[in-house]
Amino acid sequence: MTQIDLSRPILEVNDRLAQANRERLREAGVYMLDLMASPGAGKTSVILATIAALRDRFRIAVIEGDIASNVDALKIKEAGIPAVQINTGGACHLEAEMIRRALDALLLEDLDLIIVENVGNLVCPTEFYLGENAKVMILSVPEGDDKPLKYPSIFQISEAVILNKIDTLPVFDFDRAAFDKTVTSLNPNAPIFALSAVKGEGVSQWTDWLVQNLAKEA
Amino acid sequence: MTQIDLSRPILEVNDRLAQANRERLREAGVYMLDLMASPGAGKTSVILATIAALRDRFRIAVIEGDIASNVDALKIKEAGIPAVQINTGGACHLEAEMIRRALDALLLEDLDLIIVENVGNLVCPTEFYLGENAKVMILSVPEGDDKPLKYPSIFQISEAVILNKIDTLPVFDFDRAAFDKTVTSLNPNAPIFALSAVKGEGVSQWTDWLVQNLAKEA
Repeated sequence: MTQIDLSRPILEVNDRLAQANRERLREAGVYMLDLMASPGAGKTSVILATIAALRDRFRIAVIEGDIASNVDALKIKEAGIPAVQINTGGACHLEAEMIRRALDALLLEDLDLIIVENVGNLVCPTEFYLGENAKVMILSVPEGDDKPLKYPSIFQISEAVILNKIDTLPVFDFDRAAFDKTVTSLNPNAPIFALSAVKGEGVSQWTDWLVQNLAKEA
Repeated sequence: MTQIDLSRPILEVNDRLAQANRERLREAGVYMLDLMASPGAGKTSVILATIAALRDRFRIAVIEGDIASNVDALKIKEAGIPAVQINTGGACHLEAEMIRRALDALLLEDLDLIIVENVGNLVCPTEFYLGENAKVMILSVPEGDDKPLKYPSIFQISEAVILNKIDTLPVFDFDRAAFDKTVTSLNPNAPIFALSAVKGEGVSQWTDWLVQNLAKEA
């Protein structure tokens, strides 16, 4: 099969646009978080729990990336938080240009924190920077403790790893020690936050970390 | 951003190679199944349950697609079944050329059924045909009943849909009726097999369907 490597020029264009987004957000004093995970790992639930914990102290907006549908953006709007829906129309990741347009739709001067929910995927979002201050990934207990072995890149490029749905640990054969060991070998600097976004357990450690990072970058 | 559409020529080359794989398998009398799902939905567990149910009647081999690692291929080999590991080195789906090389490593005349475990992803594998007789997708209960709305393509192109981990239905807020309704609206002809690959519940309906399809194509 003829191999055509187009990844380089496409990624270079994306990186320039991501840098422009970063500058724009820095000038406006807005911290942007890129949340990545598989479909169903609980990205929207983690966002809702984060909003609940921080909405009294920070002005938050959400950018929702999906291939199709707006079910997640509707959930965020129900929580009274501005939400912009991006439909990628098939693409398995967000790109910096999509974020640029979403930022146009938000009043940046009225915000402190933008949470981007990337398309549900453990592969595609890893190579595309959006202008975020941090990429954070979520794995959920039902997905299994072997996922860092099988999808190493996303664990390597994340500033922090969230292990969600820990309330279901009794139901699944998930080896916490093995998981932590593999994650730490791939990315020694990334903290692991074990939590249940729906039940609330462990959420404050995660939001404390986010607040510290936000303060550092502001 | 400059948009370069490379999907067409790449897909045309892939389709030609897929057709060649299909011919080769047809001549050898081998049925090939392409199993697609998110990471952690239970592809390997479904394959192991399928092998256990059918190994007395059919000669089976497995082609394992992963970005990295060979943990799944090792599990298959432990079950005494020939397994070929493909590492895509970053790519989020298998392609027909990778399957061609994997077929070279198998004794086709000694096989009835090849099960391909695609890379864990609900997006990328949908556009790449491999020369399979059928694509089947697995969703697991913990991923949530809204996934057909958010990833419609994979539900539309599948010949059958497996809903795995139904033993965890009491733990998760999963609306079976809503799920079935959305899947049926996207793909009226696809049967839905609700099962627990690990516990065994519902597996025989799935393997009965597979045997019927295999007999039809032989």
